[in-house]
Amino acid sequence: VLKPGTAEDVAAIVKIAAEHHVPIVPQGGNTGLVGGQVPDESNEQIVLSLTRLNAIRAVDPVGNSITVEAGAVLQTVQEEAERHDRLFPLSLGSQGSCTIGGNLATNAGGTAVLAYGNARDLTLGLEVVTGTGDIWNGLRTLRKDNTGYDLKDLFIGSEGTLGIITAASLKLFPLPRTQKTAFIGLSSPDAALTLFNNAQKLAGAKLTGFELMPRLGLEFVLKHGDAMRDPLSSAHDWYVLIEISSGGNEEETDQLIMAILEQAFEADTIEDAALAQSQEQSKQFWKIRHLMSEVQKQEGGSIKHDISVPISAVPAFLSKATEAVLKMVPGCRPVPFGHIGDGNIHFNVSQPVDADKNAYLALWSDMNALVHAIVQEFNGSISAEHGIGKLKQPLLSQFKSPVEMQLMKSIKQALDPKGIFNPGKVL
Amino acid sequence: VLKPGTAEDVAAIVKIAAEHHVPIVPQGGNTGLVGGQVPDESNEQIVLSLTRLNAIRAVDPVGNSITVEAGAVLQTVQEEAERHDRLFPLSLGSQGSCTIGGNLATNAGGTAVLAYGNARDLTLGLEVVTGTGDIWNGLRTLRKDNTGYDLKDLFIGSEGTLGIITAASLKLFPLPRTQKTAFIGLSSPDAALTLFNNAQKLAGAKLTGFELMPRLGLEFVLKHGDAMRDPLSSAHDWYVLIEISSGGNEEETDQLIMAILEQAFEADTIEDAALAQSQEQSKQFWKIRHLMSEVQKQEGGSIKHDISVPISAVPAFLSKATEAVLKMVPGCRPVPFGHIGDGNIHFNVSQPVDADKNAYLALWSDMNALVHAIVQEFNGSISAEHGIGKLKQPLLSQFKSPVEMQLMKSIKQALDPKGIFNPGKVL
Repeated sequence: VLKPGTAEDVAAIVKIAAEHHVPIVPQGGNTGLVGGQVPDESNEQIVLSLTRLNAIRAVDPVGNSITVEAGAVLQTVQEEAERHDRLFPLSLGSQGSCTIGGNLATNAGGTAVLAYGNARDLTLGLEVVTGTGDIWNGLRTLRKDNTGYDLKDLFIGSEGTLGIITAASLKLFPLPRTQKTAFIGLSSPDAALTLFNNAQKLAGAKLTGFELMPRLGLEFVLKHGDAMRDPLSSAHDWYVLIEISSGGNEEETDQLIMAILEQAFEADTIEDAALAQSQEQSKQFWKIRHLMSEVQKQEGGSIKHDISVPISAVPAFLSKATEAVLKMVPGCRPVPFGHIGDGNIHFNVSQPVDADKNAYLALWSDMNALVHAIVQEFNGSISAEHGIGKLKQPLLSQFKSPVEMQLMKSIKQALDPKGIFNPGKVL
Repeated sequence: VLKPGTAEDVAAIVKIAAEHHVPIVPQGGNTGLVGGQVPDESNEQIVLSLTRLNAIRAVDPVGNSITVEAGAVLQTVQEEAERHDRLFPLSLGSQGSCTIGGNLATNAGGTAVLAYGNARDLTLGLEVVTGTGDIWNGLRTLRKDNTGYDLKDLFIGSEGTLGIITAASLKLFPLPRTQKTAFIGLSSPDAALTLFNNAQKLAGAKLTGFELMPRLGLEFVLKHGDAMRDPLSSAHDWYVLIEISSGGNEEETDQLIMAILEQAFEADTIEDAALAQSQEQSKQFWKIRHLMSEVQKQEGGSIKHDISVPISAVPAFLSKATEAVLKMVPGCRPVPFGHIGDGNIHFNVSQPVDADKNAYLALWSDMNALVHAIVQEFNGSISAEHGIGKLKQPLLSQFKSPVEMQLMKSIKQALDPKGIFNPGKVL
C-alpha cells in the first residue's frame, strides 16, 4: 500500500510501475460495492491510497466552483461548500468516508441525482496522472469550453482503469433556503409515474427527491426499525417520498407542495398523503427510505440488482420482473425501491419465509441472469449507479455489443498501453 | 458529395473509404462557424451529407426522451417535442437549418445553456458509425448507467474526427407555462455578476436567460435596427436581459421576477429596469440582444472572439482585455456581449470611426493573440461554443499542454487508425 502526498508522487509511482509492469489499484475511502478498489490475490499489485491527497485547493463562491484533491472526503467537501453558503449536492449513504476521487472514478449517484445529476454532471475539470506517468492539468472551472475531445468524461466512471484522478474542480449551487417533504400512499408504480411527471411539471428543478417504496418494504421497516411509525393511517400498496427544495421562502415552498398534492388528489393519482410538519418529521420520513435496504437483512437472504430502465418503462419492468422471480422461487418476496425519477430501481428480492438462507442465496447468479435479461428487453442497465468493478466484469461482454466492447478496449489500449491501471476491473 | 439514406449506407461508405484511405468530411446543415464541415481544396475528400437521414425515430413523452436521426433539423425536433407538450431546449440562431448531428458533433451552446446545459448535457445516447465501418448502437434513454466508458461524450464535440453520428436519443423537459422578461440598466459587469448570483439564488433553474450587453451595443442597435426603441428612459453603461420561465402560473412568475428586481434595487445593484408587459414587448427586448452581432457590420470591420472564463473572472477579463485592445488600436470600439451566466463573452471589437476597414481587419490574428493570451491568464477557453474546426486548429497546440495534445492524439489514433475522419480538423 502506497500513500502518496502529492500528484507528483503519484506520477513518480506510475512511471516506476509502468517501467516494471506492476499493476496499480487506486483506492479512496474503500466503500465501493463492486470490488473496483480491491487488489487481486496475487500479492503483486500496488494499492495506491489517495487518502493523504485531501486538500481543498480553492473555493470560488461567486463562480460557484470548488477545487479539491482526490482523497478529500465527500462530507468534508459538502461542509466546506456550506461554509461559503453553497451546496455541493452529491449525497450518498457512505459520505462520511467515501472520497471525491472514488466518487468520480465510479460516477457516483445517490439521492440528489434527480435535480443535480450524478458525479459526472457535477464536475467541471480534472487533474489526472496518465499511463505515461505525466500529470494532465485539466482543472478548468469553465461552464463552456469547446476545444477538443472531452477527456474529463472519459476518466470519470472508468473506475481507475485509464488513469488516476488526483484532483477535481466541482460545481457548487445556491444553498436551498427551504425544504418540504411528503409521504404519499398510492396504488401502483403507474400512479407513481403519473405523480412524478405532474410534480416535475409544476416544480421543475425544485423537485429534489422522488423515491418509490413498496408496502412490504415499509412493513419490514416498521417491524425491524427502532420506534418507526407508519406516517399514514391505513395501508397502501405503494409509497412515494417527495421532497421540494427552494431558494424562496417557506410559504412559497408550502404552496408548491400543496399544489402538487391537490392536483394529484383531484385526479385520483394518490390515495393519501402526510406532509411533514417539522424538520424532525421530515427526517423520520427519510429514515424510512434509508432503512429500506438495511432491514432486509433481518428477513433472511436478499438477492440484489442495481438496475435502470427508461423512466416510462419502470412499471412494466417491475411487473414483469416480479412475475419472473415469483415463478422461479415461489414465495420469494420482492422489495423493489429507489429512484423512480431516474429510472433506477434497487430490485432486491427477500427469501421466502422459513426457507433455507444459504440454499436461497445459491440462486444469486441464476436470479441475476433472469432479471438482467428482462432489463435488457427494456434497453436498461445492469449497473445503474454502482459500476462494474470486479463483481460485474464477467457480465459486461454479455450485455454490450462486440462493437462497444472493441471501442472500449481500443481506448484502454491507447491510454494504458502497459495495462497497469486496475487490471481485471471493468473490461 | 454522398447522401446516404440509412446508417447502414454510412457504414458501407466508411468501410470502402477506410480500405482506400479516402478522407470523409461529415456535413449537416453547413452552418458551422469554424469550417469543421468544409472539405479542403485537394478534391480528394468525400463530403458525407447526413441530411437525408432525418427521421424522428421515437418520442417518449412520459420518459421525456426523443430519438432522432442526425440529419433532422433542430427546429423540426423542437416542434416535434412541442407537439407532445414537451420542450427540447437547445436554441440557436441557425435552428431553422442546422442539424442535430452537427449540433452534437460541435457540442452546440446557444441561449438556453444557463438552465438546460449545452448539446452534450441534453444527450442520453448515440448511434455512431466507427472507424471500422461498424455501427455502434448506443441509443439508450437511461438517466443512470454506469457500465463502462463514457463513449457518448467522446464522440460529442469531436467534430466528426472520431466517428460519424447517425442518430441520437435526447432529453425532453416539461414545457414552461409562463415566461417573464426584464431589461435592466446597471453600472458595471461587477454589478451584473452580483445580480446574476442573487437571481440564481432566488430563481434556481427558472432563470433561463441572463445576457449582458454594453451601452455601445445598444446604441448600434438603436441606430441600425428597424424601429428599435431604448426600453429605459436614460442611458446606462451596461444592460442585462433577464428571463424567468416556470411551470407555475403567471402570478407566481410575476412575483419571482419582481422579488429579484426589488432586492436588486434595494441593494443598489441595478439603476433601472423595464418589465415586459406583453409577449410582444418581451420579443422586442430579445430582439435587441439578437441584433447585437448583426448591427456591428454597419460600423465597419469587427474583430471577433468566442471566449469563456470562470464566471467570477468575467469583470476582470473585460477590464483587462478592453484596456489591451484600446492600447493596441487607439479609438477601437469593444462591444463585448453574451452569456455572462456561462462565463461566455463574444468579445467583438469594432474598428475606430473613419479608420480603413481592411487595414483594421489585417490586425485580426494579432488582436486574437492579444485577447487569447489574456483568456489564458484567467484559465479560460479560446472557443467557448463554436468549436475548433479548421479555423482554430493551428491555435489548439498553443493553448493545450503537450500532455493533453498527446492524450487526444492517442484517442484519435485508437478510434480512427486510418485517419479518414475529417483530417486537418481539431488536431
